[in-house]
Amino acid sequence: MSKRTSSRRSAQREGRIHSDFPQLPARKVRRRWPAIEPLSQDHIEAIHEASLTLLETTGMDFLLPEAREILKRHGCDVRSGEERVRMGRDVVLAHVAHAPAQFTIHARNPARSYVLGDDTINFLAVGSPPNCSDLAGGRRPGNFKDYCDFVRLSQFFNAIHSLGGYMVEPMDCPPATRHLDALHAALTLSDKAIFCYSLGLERNLDGIEMARIACGLPEDSTCIFTIVNTNSPLRLDKPMLRGIMEMATRNQAVVITPFTLAGAMAPVTLAGALVQQNAEALAGIAFTQMVRPGAPVVYGGFTSNVDMHTGAPAFGTPEYVQGTLIGGQLARRYNLPYRSSNVNASNAPDGQATYESMMSLWACFLGHVHMVKHGAGWLEGGLCASFEKFVMDCEMIQHLALSQTPPVVDAQTLALEAIDSVGPGGHFFGTPHTLERYETAFYQPFLSDWNNFETWQERGSQWTAQRAQALVQRALEEYEEPPMAADTRAKLDAFVERRRREGGCRET
Amino acid sequence: MSKRTSSRRSAQREGRIHSDFPQLPARKVRRRWPAIEPLSQDHIEAIHEASLTLLETTGMDFLLPEAREILKRHGCDVRSGEERVRMGRDVVLAHVAHAPAQFTIHARNPARSYVLGDDTINFLAVGSPPNCSDLAGGRRPGNFKDYCDFVRLSQFFNAIHSLGGYMVEPMDCPPATRHLDALHAALTLSDKAIFCYSLGLERNLDGIEMARIACGLPEDSTCIFTIVNTNSPLRLDKPMLRGIMEMATRNQAVVITPFTLAGAMAPVTLAGALVQQNAEALAGIAFTQMVRPGAPVVYGGFTSNVDMHTGAPAFGTPEYVQGTLIGGQLARRYNLPYRSSNVNASNAPDGQATYESMMSLWACFLGHVHMVKHGAGWLEGGLCASFEKFVMDCEMIQHLALSQTPPVVDAQTLALEAIDSVGPGGHFFGTPHTLERYETAFYQPFLSDWNNFETWQERGSQWTAQRAQALVQRALEEYEEPPMAADTRAKLDAFVERRRREGGCRET
Repeated sequence: MSKRTSSRRSAQREGRIHSDFPQLPARKVRRRWPAIEPLSQDHIEAIHEASLTLLETTGMDFLLPEAREILKRHGCDVRSGEERVRMGRDVVLAHVAHAPAQFTIHARNPARSYVLGDDTINFLAVGSPPNCSDLAGGRRPGNFKDYCDFVRLSQFFNAIHSLGGYMVEPMDCPPATRHLDALHAALTLSDKAIFCYSLGLERNLDGIEMARIACGLPEDSTCIFTIVNTNSPLRLDKPMLRGIMEMATRNQAVVITPFTLAGAMAPVTLAGALVQQNAEALAGIAFTQMVRPGAPVVYGGFTSNVDMHTGAPAFGTPEYVQGTLIGGQLARRYNLPYRSSNVNASNAPDGQATYESMMSLWACFLGHVHMVKHGAGWLEGGLCASFEKFVMDCEMIQHLALSQTPPVVDAQTLALEAIDSVGPGGHFFGTPHTLERYETAFYQPFLSDWNNFETWQERGSQWTAQRAQALVQRALEEYEEPPMAADTRAKLDAFVERRRREGGCRET
Repeated sequence: MSKRTSSRRSAQREGRIHSDFPQLPARKVRRRWPAIEPLSQDHIEAIHEASLTLLETTGMDFLLPEAREILKRHGCDVRSGEERVRMGRDVVLAHVAHAPAQFTIHARNPARSYVLGDDTINFLAVGSPPNCSDLAGGRRPGNFKDYCDFVRLSQFFNAIHSLGGYMVEPMDCPPATRHLDALHAALTLSDKAIFCYSLGLERNLDGIEMARIACGLPEDSTCIFTIVNTNSPLRLDKPMLRGIMEMATRNQAVVITPFTLAGAMAPVTLAGALVQQNAEALAGIAFTQMVRPGAPVVYGGFTSNVDMHTGAPAFGTPEYVQGTLIGGQLARRYNLPYRSSNVNASNAPDGQATYESMMSLWACFLGHVHMVKHGAGWLEGGLCASFEKFVMDCEMIQHLALSQTPPVVDAQTLALEAIDSVGPGGHFFGTPHTLERYETAFYQPFLSDWNNFETWQERGSQWTAQRAQALVQRALEEYEEPPMAADTRAKLDAFVERRRREGGCRET
């Protein structure tokens, strides 16, 4: 540890200083631009009708018998001994109509709670890669130390509003208690909202209970969420259906995200992939509302395409942009909060990672996405969490967030007097109009290097990813663990200790 | 030269093969999305009125006496012995109203001519950096060989619609004949439209004559354009005014672009910088119309900000996005074609170069820009032309261009039968619906690497800029010189030879 680091840390321990990392303060990001809508209302209706026809005639497999019971009870066509469920369009729409247009996901720090469905766009840290990497250490399987560092980064960077799945799978934690380790770290190293995987009843219940303890809110307060991916095409498996049932029953949030890669698990035509996405999403959403009318649920879109030469998934492509924008049209058709992602398929935190992410992020803003999963850190189509990319994404999110704000237009900012007093051939550097405003006039990025070439070269000719590498270290040094009341911490620790003693998750 | 290169070149000479570089065919890029308009109509009117007040009361310096004569003759307030010209708002608006809402810039290949002012967005190669760089050779002062290679790339890549200024200054060509060398290379190595600098009467006249010979069009056909940068604040110098006069008189296109960097040559407030941009642009545009009513002219926007810590210009920032979008609102206010740029301030073809360029490019699409200057190759805030960045930009332009096209929605693409026949748990890889469409279903980028990590690693772990470097070489190998009729070539060569004998440009 450098001397600077050491003295900074001791100063922090004594409460003398806080981080002076040059990022924007924690804030809601409000989108100001109208949504871009590539399809006419007629074409949206055509997708809507086709997806309802699909649910009515082809139907969808629900692999959990208890789920089929619920569906049957609510008027779906479920035949004895068959997993296939056919859902009449009226049944689907009547239940989808119960879903709330907006709701709050509570964090243990109330200032970190966020609304899904209003004019804010909320960015989540990357979730679920099996590997992670940084420039110094290279690529490695996920582990608990790296996981905790990602939790710290997610807490540290104000661009990130919420956690969202393990930033990297902590594979060195035993599977039966991994969820206890990971969620305990998430709830103590961060005060942002958390996520739990729907991989069996106990993991859902443990997650809900731990979040409830940490938030100190009454039962049925929404303080955790899960992602339910359909097994596209047209199938919901047992863990996912249990996840919907356990979470929705307890008023916890469920994000239904069909995994519709056009050309692989969905039709090769984008319109067809969106029909399938819409059918699967509506089926899952209708089911949540059968479990509990009014339960918080999100319309998830993840439609992209595969490379037809190799079968590899492609992200941040023109097709992804269209899919994200049209997904927004569909979610608004049903008045539902909308989830999409900041994705790319690059193997390094390089130009491709950046342009594919920028395509994704602009589409999220213009598609009026409410929840941007994988907001920071995703690489390799989701197979790797990159520390440098995490920092690069936070910078890009700040760029886009600030681009939403139009300039102030009034007598002072129009600056007629200032221009007149400078006059032709002058400059504005030292004028009162400039001096009064220059410190806060413009956005100051933390990652961009605007030095001239010579200065940049003298300082080591660092490319963006290298600067990001240094900022990762700085962020981890300046990171401060958010306080938690002692009694809350004791309760949380005791819960985890008890569940550990019980052996954690005993399901396979 | 590799054996492959050598045999490819000889095959090309014999007309046996053409390039199989996997880029999109040459095409118009039509924007499909509505413009994003950050300011209310009231605020646009406030900027409009303030800029007219500025021209009326503060006025603007026109350094060329002949220009002041013209302004005086058209009713402006010009006082004896003063450079300052005050322009009444009615005079300004009456003349701006003569400017055409759209016009064509002709190229010597008619298929390369393009319209400014319709629904197309046209990308120009980078213009005017003093330096260039590639990963192998590093950064070096501009020279004729690199200049010619950039002309070849500009010709080769279909993402680029037009040349636009020397991609890098060929400093090894003598100043007096440099324009002859550079334009002769531009007109013979490429068949896209060209640009001439307004650096003295002879350079303008030579450029116009060379373009006219190459295009074989009648006099007064618009077959070349120039950029007129104001010396912000509020000054137009002699070469620029001569440029307007010589070009507009001959019906050649003039792009009036104020150089309004907020905090330096313009007010620190974005609204004030835009007032100044608008005033300077309107003054220049009105002047072109006094010279020749109906002369083709473009409203140029280049408002960005400086880093207030160092004075360095910043590009691709949130302020730049706002400036570009609002500039579009202003240009549409006057029904004029609109120019902006694909800019960044990075020193390497890295993540920053990419995210700043992506900010610029998205703003250009959403601001309804007609002419995107510096579309490919710009680095270091314009001080360096990068070969790798050129390729990266062409890829980003293709991404954005294709994102404009909504998917086809009809019975076949909605794919209900295909989804039904695959059914739950299946996949779409080998289905007839996929096989009929897979070859052309999705965009195939030339620069992105979608291989999985292991394959990517086996192939050398190449980052985006390294792949771009290889593609530069491939493009230069597969480049083919566009044909020119022998008599046209003879006329062009003879003109250049004569002007060389005369000593080229004798002005200083």
